Amino acid sequence: MEVKFERLALIGIGLIGSSIARAARRSGIVGEIAIQSRRAETVETARRLALGDAYTTDPAEAVRGADLVIVCVPVGACEDVARAIGPALAEGALVSDVGSVKASIIRQMQPHLPAHVHFVPAHPVAGTEHSGPEAGFAELFRNRWCILTPAPEADRAAVARLRAFWEAFGAYVEEMPAEHHDMVLAITSHVPHLIAYNIVGTAAHLEEVTQSEVMKFAAGGFRDFTRIAASDPTMWRDVFLNNREAVLEMLARFNEDLTALQRAIRWGDGDTLFELFARTRAIRRGIIEAGQEVEAPDFGRGQLAADPHKA
Amino acid sequence: MEVKFERLALIGIGLIGSSIARAARRSGIVGEIAIQSRRAETVETARRLALGDAYTTDPAEAVRGADLVIVCVPVGACEDVARAIGPALAEGALVSDVGSVKASIIRQMQPHLPAHVHFVPAHPVAGTEHSGPEAGFAELFRNRWCILTPAPEADRAAVARLRAFWEAFGAYVEEMPAEHHDMVLAITSHVPHLIAYNIVGTAAHLEEVTQSEVMKFAAGGFRDFTRIAASDPTMWRDVFLNNREAVLEMLARFNEDLTALQRAIRWGDGDTLFELFARTRAIRRGIIEAGQEVEAPDFGRGQLAADPHKA
Ligand SMILES: NC(=O)c1ccc[n+]([C@@H]2O[C@H](COP(=O)([O-])OP(=O)(O)OC[C@H]3O[C@@H](n4cnc5c(N)ncnc54)[C@H](OP(=O)(O)O)[C@@H]3O)[C@@H](O)[C@H]2O)c1
Ligand SMILES: NC(=O)c1ccc[n+]([C@@H]2O[C@H](COP(=O)([O-])OP(=O)(O)OC[C@H]3O[C@@H](n4cnc5c(N)ncnc54)[C@H](OP(=O)(O)O)[C@@H]3O)[C@@H](O)[C@H]2O)c1
Repeated sequence: MEVKFERLALIGIGLIGSSIARAARRSGIVGEIAIQSRRAETVETARRLALGDAYTTDPAEAVRGADLVIVCVPVGACEDVARAIGPALAEGALVSDVGSVKASIIRQMQPHLPAHVHFVPAHPVAGTEHSGPEAGFAELFRNRWCILTPAPEADRAAVARLRAFWEAFGAYVEEMPAEHHDMVLAITSHVPHLIAYNIVGTAAHLEEVTQSEVMKFAAGGFRDFTRIAASDPTMWRDVFLNNREAVLEMLARFNEDLTALQRAIRWGDGDTLFELFARTRAIRRGIIEAGQEVEAPDFGRGQLAADPHKA
Repeated sequence: MEVKFERLALIGIGLIGSSIARAARRSGIVGEIAIQSRRAETVETARRLALGDAYTTDPAEAVRGADLVIVCVPVGACEDVARAIGPALAEGALVSDVGSVKASIIRQMQPHLPAHVHFVPAHPVAGTEHSGPEAGFAELFRNRWCILTPAPEADRAAVARLRAFWEAFGAYVEEMPAEHHDMVLAITSHVPHLIAYNIVGTAAHLEEVTQSEVMKFAAGGFRDFTRIAASDPTMWRDVFLNNREAVLEMLARFNEDLTALQRAIRWGDGDTLFELFARTRAIRRGIIEAGQEVEAPDFGRGQLAADPHKA
């Protein structure tokens, strides 16, 4: 399908927004790109990086005349953004977002969008622990999944156009109901972030072990957790506040399983431990086969320079 | 200090043993290398890789005439190994190990070692999720810490010689009591492995989310956990069985903190979440500054080929 948008408006130009700007420019799937960010400072950075064709701090101004609008702000800011852009949206515009939670964003945005636009929520399952316009790159979405969660009554042509947009960046696209998305991401992303934040917090508060020891001996496994625990605090606060039920449900399962492991350790039940530890390998193999992970040991860290500062 | 060992015996030739063999050969700090492994098959692989000068399945034969013996087997196998090598150890030999737990190994090995040898336990805090002789590489220990846990009455010259041995591989060396080591590693390595194994296990058992979904959408954070949950089951079973108290203690702290986070999510207390999420970034910064982690986003995965199968 030959798809082309005349004017793309990006509301928010952080890691995700700026990666979309770069990928859209490179793929040629859009004509002009209008960029908005809340702070003049961020808008200036985007301008310096030449990410678009028009720059503003005013969301309404950015969306005027755009046939594709993508909201790329923290989940908790989506209602305000929808309220601000609603009256300025063009007839027939395709409105989407990139938020890590879907049902809450639909509840926040839908009431403020006029009937003459097509709203197709989306979530590209790709990111890094860095944020801001300088952290983005065009390849971020390549070989990663983007999940669309259109309502059952959504316009199928609009959904197909958004699918083509993401596929132009090398992404794979899947559709599912928003509630199912929120459950899947609770276990594959939200709870992992929560327990990573939690263990890094625990390690920071011990009396028996110093901070300096935690840092020196982090290569034993801990450092893997610090990567996701270095993600943006605002973004993640909003994720947990807006996907409360699914996160608490998945956390309850995690806790039940952890209690069983704890009991196996207390009782010296090596068979239970071995059996679990042997099973979990298969999942990693599946993720590598699904093209969602590098095969190199240690994430290929060793293939970077021996001196980690050179990385 | 100019240190040289005439004959190094490696008991066990998996990831760690074979990395030591390669690093020792390259650094020139040893004359001959004698290699032992339990199974003839593993011994043959070591021979094919030309990791040493003499090969055997018999631990006593391997240590005969060695002035440095390093035991590189799972923690739970150390008592049997000590019993087997004890009578064959040369007068004045330096005996060490690489086990991830220290107090238990000392309790297992010490009683079987003759008074005429020097026992200096060690733990190189370096590794990958792979095992076996083919997984090893000489650079594994470069810029990583090796912790020595000699008894207070240990011969200082022997400790200094072992320190020089590890430093010859580019490692940094630190000394501490075995009990303290076990507490530090419980939080920096053992509990992180346990919760990684646990969440991967939880994700494998859900009814609401399919295995295929877990694999496809793993790039949202989950895949980081699967790396350490792909580590060797025997090694890790032995770690938990042999560092039970420190692991249960650290797990209790982790659980307390997680309960508080869970409550913050339930009550919609965004400030508590934000405050923790903002603090944890500093720890990663410290680990990068300590040279124990790569600085590149996503562990530098993106610097590998865009197609993860090429990695
Ligand atoms: N990071 C990831 O790994 C990832 C992955 C997939 C999806 N997502 C989703 O993508 C969205 C953006 O994340 P990001 O990583 O790109 O964030 P980011 O790099 O921190 O950028 C956030 C952008 O939103 C703006 N913004 C922040 N707070 C705002 C508010 N209260 N009102 C209006 N605008 C506000 C910022 O503007 P100023 O700089 O001008 O203040 C900036 O333009 C989030 O919904 C997140 O859930 C993130
Ligand atoms: N992997 C890491 O990341 C890491 C890091 C630091 C320290 N360590 C410690 O290093 C030690 C070895 O780990 P590794 O990763 O090198 O393991 P590995 O790659 O699985 O190799 C294990 C070696 O021990 C032998 N072995 C296994 N079970 C045995 C038994 N019951 N009796 C005698 N020999 C046995 C194996 O012999 P066969 O192959 O012939 O059966 C093989 O030679 C462990 O104590 C571990 O705690 C590991």
